[in-house]
Amino acid sequence: MKVVTFGEIMLRLMPEGDGRFVQAGRYNASYGGGEASVAVSLANFGLDSKFVSRLPKHEIGQAGVNALRKFGVDTTDIVRGGDRVGICFLERGAGWRPPKEIYDRTGSSISQAVRGDFDWDRILEGADWFHFTAITPALSDNTAEICLEAVKKAREKGITVSCGLDYQSGLWSGQKAGRVMGELCKYVDVCIAGAEDVRNVFGIREADTDIKDGRLSREGYRDVAKRLADRFGFRKVAVTPPVLSCANESGWAALLYDGEGYYFSRNYNMHIVDRTGGSDSFGAGLIYACLRGMEPEGIIEFAAAACCFKYGIEGAFNLVTADEVLKLAAGDASGRVRK
Amino acid sequence: MKVVTFGEIMLRLMPEGDGRFVQAGRYNASYGGGEASVAVSLANFGLDSKFVSRLPKHEIGQAGVNALRKFGVDTTDIVRGGDRVGICFLERGAGWRPPKEIYDRTGSSISQAVRGDFDWDRILEGADWFHFTAITPALSDNTAEICLEAVKKAREKGITVSCGLDYQSGLWSGQKAGRVMGELCKYVDVCIAGAEDVRNVFGIREADTDIKDGRLSREGYRDVAKRLADRFGFRKVAVTPPVLSCANESGWAALLYDGEGYYFSRNYNMHIVDRTGGSDSFGAGLIYACLRGMEPEGIIEFAAAACCFKYGIEGAFNLVTADEVLKLAAGDASGRVRK
Amino acid sequence: MKVVTFGEIMLRLMPEGDGRFVQAGRYNASYGGGEASVAVSLANFGLDSKFVSRLPKHEIGQAGVNALRKFGVDTTDIVRGGDRVGICFLERGAGWRPPKEIYDRTGSSISQAVRGDFDWDRILEGADWFHFTAITPALSDNTAEICLEAVKKAREKGITVSCGLDYQSGLWSGQKAGRVMGELCKYVDVCIAGAEDVRNVFGIREADTDIKDGRLSREGYRDVAKRLADRFGFRKVAVTPPVLSCANESGWAALLYDGEGYYFSRNYNMHIVDRTGGSDSFGAGLIYACLRGMEPEGIIEFAAAACCFKYGIEGAFNLVTADEVLKLAAGDASGRVRK
Amino acid sequence: MKVVTFGEIMLRLMPEGDGRFVQAGRYNASYGGGEASVAVSLANFGLDSKFVSRLPKHEIGQAGVNALRKFGVDTTDIVRGGDRVGICFLERGAGWRPPKEIYDRTGSSISQAVRGDFDWDRILEGADWFHFTAITPALSDNTAEICLEAVKKAREKGITVSCGLDYQSGLWSGQKAGRVMGELCKYVDVCIAGAEDVRNVFGIREADTDIKDGRLSREGYRDVAKRLADRFGFRKVAVTPPVLSCANESGWAALLYDGEGYYFSRNYNMHIVDRTGGSDSFGAGLIYACLRGMEPEGIIEFAAAACCFKYGIEGAFNLVTADEVLKLAAGDASGRVRK
Amino acid sequence: MKVVTFGEIMLRLMPEGDGRFVQAGRYNASYGGGEASVAVSLANFGLDSKFVSRLPKHEIGQAGVNALRKFGVDTTDIVRGGDRVGICFLERGAGWRPPKEIYDRTGSSISQAVRGDFDWDRILEGADWFHFTAITPALSDNTAEICLEAVKKAREKGITVSCGLDYQSGLWSGQKAGRVMGELCKYVDVCIAGAEDVRNVFGIREADTDIKDGRLSREGYRDVAKRLADRFGFRKVAVTPPVLSCANESGWAALLYDGEGYYFSRNYNMHIVDRTGGSDSFGAGLIYACLRGMEPEGIIEFAAAACCFKYGIEGAFNLVTADEVLKLAAGDASGRVRK
Amino acid sequence: MKVVTFGEIMLRLMPEGDGRFVQAGRYNASYGGGEASVAVSLANFGLDSKFVSRLPKHEIGQAGVNALRKFGVDTTDIVRGGDRVGICFLERGAGWRPPKEIYDRTGSSISQAVRGDFDWDRILEGADWFHFTAITPALSDNTAEICLEAVKKAREKGITVSCGLDYQSGLWSGQKAGRVMGELCKYVDVCIAGAEDVRNVFGIREADTDIKDGRLSREGYRDVAKRLADRFGFRKVAVTPPVLSCANESGWAALLYDGEGYYFSRNYNMHIVDRTGGSDSFGAGLIYACLRGMEPEGIIEFAAAACCFKYGIEGAFNLVTADEVLKLAAGDASGRVRK
Repeated sequence: MKVVTFGEIMLRLMPEGDGRFVQAGRYNASYGGGEASVAVSLANFGLDSKFVSRLPKHEIGQAGVNALRKFGVDTTDIVRGGDRVGICFLERGAGWRPPKEIYDRTGSSISQAVRGDFDWDRILEGADWFHFTAITPALSDNTAEICLEAVKKAREKGITVSCGLDYQSGLWSGQKAGRVMGELCKYVDVCIAGAEDVRNVFGIREADTDIKDGRLSREGYRDVAKRLADRFGFRKVAVTPPVLSCANESGWAALLYDGEGYYFSRNYNMHIVDRTGGSDSFGAGLIYACLRGMEPEGIIEFAAAACCFKYGIEGAFNLVTADEVLKLAAGDASGRVRK
Repeated sequence: MKVVTFGEIMLRLMPEGDGRFVQAGRYNASYGGGEASVAVSLANFGLDSKFVSRLPKHEIGQAGVNALRKFGVDTTDIVRGGDRVGICFLERGAGWRPPKEIYDRTGSSISQAVRGDFDWDRILEGADWFHFTAITPALSDNTAEICLEAVKKAREKGITVSCGLDYQSGLWSGQKAGRVMGELCKYVDVCIAGAEDVRNVFGIREADTDIKDGRLSREGYRDVAKRLADRFGFRKVAVTPPVLSCANESGWAALLYDGEGYYFSRNYNMHIVDRTGGSDSFGAGLIYACLRGMEPEGIIEFAAAACCFKYGIEGAFNLVTADEVLKLAAGDASGRVRK
Repeated sequence: MKVVTFGEIMLRLMPEGDGRFVQAGRYNASYGGGEASVAVSLANFGLDSKFVSRLPKHEIGQAGVNALRKFGVDTTDIVRGGDRVGICFLERGAGWRPPKEIYDRTGSSISQAVRGDFDWDRILEGADWFHFTAITPALSDNTAEICLEAVKKAREKGITVSCGLDYQSGLWSGQKAGRVMGELCKYVDVCIAGAEDVRNVFGIREADTDIKDGRLSREGYRDVAKRLADRFGFRKVAVTPPVLSCANESGWAALLYDGEGYYFSRNYNMHIVDRTGGSDSFGAGLIYACLRGMEPEGIIEFAAAACCFKYGIEGAFNLVTADEVLKLAAGDASGRVRK
Repeated sequence: MKVVTFGEIMLRLMPEGDGRFVQAGRYNASYGGGEASVAVSLANFGLDSKFVSRLPKHEIGQAGVNALRKFGVDTTDIVRGGDRVGICFLERGAGWRPPKEIYDRTGSSISQAVRGDFDWDRILEGADWFHFTAITPALSDNTAEICLEAVKKAREKGITVSCGLDYQSGLWSGQKAGRVMGELCKYVDVCIAGAEDVRNVFGIREADTDIKDGRLSREGYRDVAKRLADRFGFRKVAVTPPVLSCANESGWAALLYDGEGYYFSRNYNMHIVDRTGGSDSFGAGLIYACLRGMEPEGIIEFAAAACCFKYGIEGAFNLVTADEVLKLAAGDASGRVRK
Repeated sequence: MKVVTFGEIMLRLMPEGDGRFVQAGRYNASYGGGEASVAVSLANFGLDSKFVSRLPKHEIGQAGVNALRKFGVDTTDIVRGGDRVGICFLERGAGWRPPKEIYDRTGSSISQAVRGDFDWDRILEGADWFHFTAITPALSDNTAEICLEAVKKAREKGITVSCGLDYQSGLWSGQKAGRVMGELCKYVDVCIAGAEDVRNVFGIREADTDIKDGRLSREGYRDVAKRLADRFGFRKVAVTPPVLSCANESGWAALLYDGEGYYFSRNYNMHIVDRTGGSDSFGAGLIYACLRGMEPEGIIEFAAAACCFKYGIEGAFNLVTADEVLKLAAGDASGRVRK
Repeated sequence: MKVVTFGEIMLRLMPEGDGRFVQAGRYNASYGGGEASVAVSLANFGLDSKFVSRLPKHEIGQAGVNALRKFGVDTTDIVRGGDRVGICFLERGAGWRPPKEIYDRTGSSISQAVRGDFDWDRILEGADWFHFTAITPALSDNTAEICLEAVKKAREKGITVSCGLDYQSGLWSGQKAGRVMGELCKYVDVCIAGAEDVRNVFGIREADTDIKDGRLSREGYRDVAKRLADRFGFRKVAVTPPVLSCANESGWAALLYDGEGYYFSRNYNMHIVDRTGGSDSFGAGLIYACLRGMEPEGIIEFAAAACCFKYGIEGAFNLVTADEVLKLAAGDASGRVRK
């Protein structure tokens, strides 16, 4: 089964160990980006996974291509051009020191892509699923247009479309996000959203929720999922709570709503090695589980386990096989050595 | 006082930091192996400690010898020959990602040792204690024979024999392990066993035990220890529960049975930096405490504290002095800086 | 506003990662020292911060100067001379393995400073605050004399004087500490003390306190603070409990007494990346908050938050801005990424 | 244009920096192997490059697959099975200390491949060129048979066959090598050989040659190439002199003989960062230049430049584009920064 | 004596060791930039050195400020604002592999500075010398204007102005460079130029020169220097040949022309650890030697020695004292250990 | 055969890579010292090697013991006591930047040893050779006395005594060195000296020698050796020229004079990875070759080859076997990979 993802791939630069930016004499370099993470996850799960983007011809761009090819992602439709790879400087938090990100993505190749760069008719040929996140249309008006063209073409071809509703306030206002995503969501079948993103983008919030400490009542989640599905006609909606590093004691569980039932994953206590890519790992798990034809209970458990696994892996990509996720989803978390 | 240990020494290759194998551009290299760990522990405690094995003549073998000499272990009876040092690739777990080991020990020098390689009469001269684990006879029929020769000679000479009952399913079946170890245990005085190993090797299990989450009732442990002692005539039996990394909240305590009383160590909450060598550190602590003539209560506290200390040390070896263990065993775990 | 600090700056050598000294093939090198840490904190908070000390002319001394200049500390009154930079070998603890420090500061340049080295009249010109810790007079009789000269001159000039009452048993006896510090404290306005230091230096202890597990009742803290203030006429006294790495579950809170009211900070659970410099970060936070004219409640929250932030930073210096501390002090500890 | 290569891929473990094996606390890990290097070179030059081998299913095997995919090599015909990845421990030389290799490849998956593992008819479909080295048939009788099957099938299909005549004395005797390679060479069109390999495998040596210091007269090279071509009917023969690290002053040049003319590359002085993969980079350069239809003079210059470029790159793979090689081959070696 | 420099400060990211960009999992991070290097050199020589630029407020910008403060550079006139720090990805060459730079400086804070950002009247107060390079006016039309304002103000105040005539083809055409620099050079007293830059910017070339292999006859250098001085009325002109890494055998010497005499430094054979900042180290050496009132022979020897010393230092900055340069300039190059 | 060496063992701290002290965020840590290096060399050559010294009880001292035990050196007569391990900060040179050492050995344990610490009668029992260098008596008057006691006792017992005549100007004046060493040399049989040390300590210099560029005519070396032998009655004298890193083109050769003949080793061009321990490696080679009963020609070739090998090894210790040295001494320097 073949999945096409479209979006940004960035260079992540992270000071060694627990260092702050002002201490950094060495940066660990890796590549990331929402849809790129989904593409790698899916390739690791064994699907036919193609990632579409735009990257400069020089070696910093080439290294981005290589980072995806390494895990078997099909990169043949990455357009080469432009000057810059977007950069994300990332400082890991520790104790009471929160993590910190500095985005340096102005003028990145993907943000300056134009519609003619991608022949969606050809790219989507033979695909079963198309995925993007709200980051991509936020990069520029051009990328928003390209997304719209892609999802329309996907719907035309009967390809399932999923969208990760990640909201980045540095890229656009909630208002603009709401308008653009509102249009795009008309062509989306499966919506994957953090509870806060839903509020920021569509203003959907549940009464009496103290969002500050990241806890929504289960009732609140159900309400949010239903309202989303009702507004846009999504066939499936998944909602996840924020993952807090300083409040490890509070559990984390995700919800799937398929228009009929509400399915919660089991509850996880989080220990976070690297918080990047958690929601994308969740999304990839959900796509995989859907394509494999799992039942709703299995889908949400697989997606949640994929997400939890990711928090124990350094870098943006979820370097885990479907087997490993299945074991965790099945509750085998004894922590014993796998031989 | 002089202790002789016999067994395998392997090269441990561990991806830097929290990296997975597929991310590893650099491996931290160290040497380990059950009996080698015991030998280093005992040398660090101040005993006269000799380690007996077989290693290739080349530098990868020499580095194994050096790793032991560094801590004062007598390596003069390590036979040099054969082609390979067994390798253990080791991936540290994190969060919900479990640790993983890949053993690459086929054709290792020690597994191809033959009986004539070791003159036990001479090697054991002047020794007070002989120790091996169930890994060694599992390596090959030859090493099983060599173990048998060694323990018979030790008994002849009135040397105390201890055995760590570690079961590795990749090396032999439980059935074969039961048969070979059953024969060897006739010459063993002190048996050190994980609760699961006892079940796997000798089929001794306590009714109503949910071994899956690693919790045996204290009653169950007593029962296991007594049945082991009764079957083989061990003078002392120590039983330890599994150490779980994903369930830190559950405590850990070890049991000593000396044919008369049952002695539990105090309960520890574990934080694991490196899980290799925990049971061997426990074993070394037990041997040291016995040789120093401690009371049963002191023996099990020393062994348990040695084990807990190890989980805070990187590498296979327990790089800790008897003084440091005694302080922890005495309950001084205030975590203040030692100046 | 301008603060002058006087004291030692040492080279800190720490084995990489969680390594013990006997494993160290590589040391992370940084510079630290109580007053130096205060000076860096204050520069990072945006104050005019001058550090006074004595360092050799060679490059190991120069690197100490550079380590301070990097963060904007004024080093123009560091006297260059003598042979050695004091060294602190530092082993990070983990799990049940406690941290360990080996001091190698004999013959350090600062310990061999003489009174004529520092022209306090000129150095203190324009200063609003002078700070030192009990480490400095402990280094040698000379440095004790120099401290006395400095605090007298500061009082003369109407400069506020604060003292961190850190007691290091390797440098002097409690008796000598009590005598020397008793004399110096006559010129001190603000005293910052760990509960144990007060006991060790001045023998002030509260009845019925089980100091061993580091817990003083809140009543006990109030009593200690009041007795300190009463004995020396301090205008402000801050008392902090020990920070325990093996007992994370127990909370930590600090107390400020200003002669009228007793103000406790809120309670923190600690996760410690690097324990060096915690009390100095607390002290710097307190100095900054006082100089900024905060209310007592704000002062103790700012100082406590600065301290907690530090435990999440590698190295001796608290590399944090006043804004970051204010956010934490205001209770925003959601652990979300700052973008 | 499509090239298929068949052979071994090994894990290379190299002590950091200039360390010796007995100093190694950390190994840089990469993957290499003669034909794998050729495959990566060709992919980097922009050809369609498929590598065929056998690797275990576990992650150490998977990492080998990934190492090739990263550079765009088609790995879909790598059979997964067996237990081990062959390992090469590699110590870089320095000054008067020569480099050192310890091979640990006993029982590697590829050495235990059987004929049925590879369906050459399908694998070679659409290929223009097939390449292997003398290492592969040396691994086991099975791999020798598989090679024979492959080259026969290639000839049948009219695919050009090239062979790198690398002789490894640890794998087989010169006599056996001569016999097996003699049979295989009947199906080889292009032979790429080091001068010493020719002597070791086929006993072809030129009179009056002091092979000890690695210098063959140009006349001698011509003679060797002609005798090789005459004996086996090769269409092209390339001969390279040894590359000496301790004799930088002596130049290095390669020869191509195409049955009509003798073409020497220009002379290079070598500076060696990593000596692995030099001859394979030469071979890949030669294959590429032939497939691109270059003239003999261009072919040998391109191959020689590709080889020289490699000696400046760490790891076994020649991470260089055709453009970069062309520039060097064209004599632009000014050492100025490429912007 | 006080020197003010104005220009760019960039983040330099360099793959560890000899790695290529496509191998980089870790980047060594440092800060550089032509004028910033000059500023650090001069501070290390003991002068009062101020660097003027524009940097973002975030931590990547702050780390740039810190990198300069560390060595005592006055950074109080660095304007904070804008979004980006320009980045230079830098791949060290080795053997026949040339070094490579990828500039990512679009939209950097300094390139978007406006005239009102810098109050040159105040900034230049008390200065003895002002320095900039041709990189700065090349960044944007704004920075060209700012440069012009600065040099005019400097001339007004009687401050000596020097210019490093570095030409970067990626920033502007030779034609535009010639026009802009032609205007700026009217206010320049001391011109420091590479032979190729003079050709690229002003089209001044000596007949019969094979620039390709970087060798100009001494006669040619004299001619170039004289023509430059004649055209712009420079009081001093220094000309340096390119430094070639692949042609170590050819020596390197620099020329000073002071309107009267021609002074060549002695000849150096180069070994290059890091080629960045060589010409700036030369420039800083020249400025220092002039300000110290050395004779022309001494000036060119000091500048040349400073430059050679730099090639042995990692990073962009010349971390060397005036004493160290003087020793090398005096011919003490015995390579013995300094104790 | 058993050799006893007596002297200092220091902690060597070296900035990573080519870093200067002011750049060092990480130090590579190893142990060194003249006689310790000799002891390790001899153990690596297969002799029974005992090293005698004094080291603190703490872990920094223990790590020194371990560094020797690792290579099989007998450390049982290292006295434990005192506070400090002497430290040598070491900056590797590069290009025109010379290497630099900062010694921080004041108050080291060995410098404060007293005569009663060592029972030479017992220590030297069974020894065939005793070795020390001029560094040891230079550390303090006590160590000078202890040396005298040791060499007297050695002569009494008929043990051959060798002395490395290394002169360190930071420890004593040439005058004092001459007086103390003059007394000690009465008991020395074999003297190993650098040409410059002979001049500094005993004022023996040959006319017309330009010592500045390190070149002594062969005639001059012969003269120096003969005058040394004549003055002190040495049975053997070896003289080595300085090893220059910036003048690689000049060869290096060593001389042995045995009272009858003068034997020069062959000439080596040096490439230096780490210059520490070269003369000690030469000394250890000489001792080994003498004890193995080689002819004078073989002795000087072995010693010279051991020395050259060392310059290619990182750290102070010559980690090389007798076989490896013999191959190099025999002229096999082809630089080919040893398999």
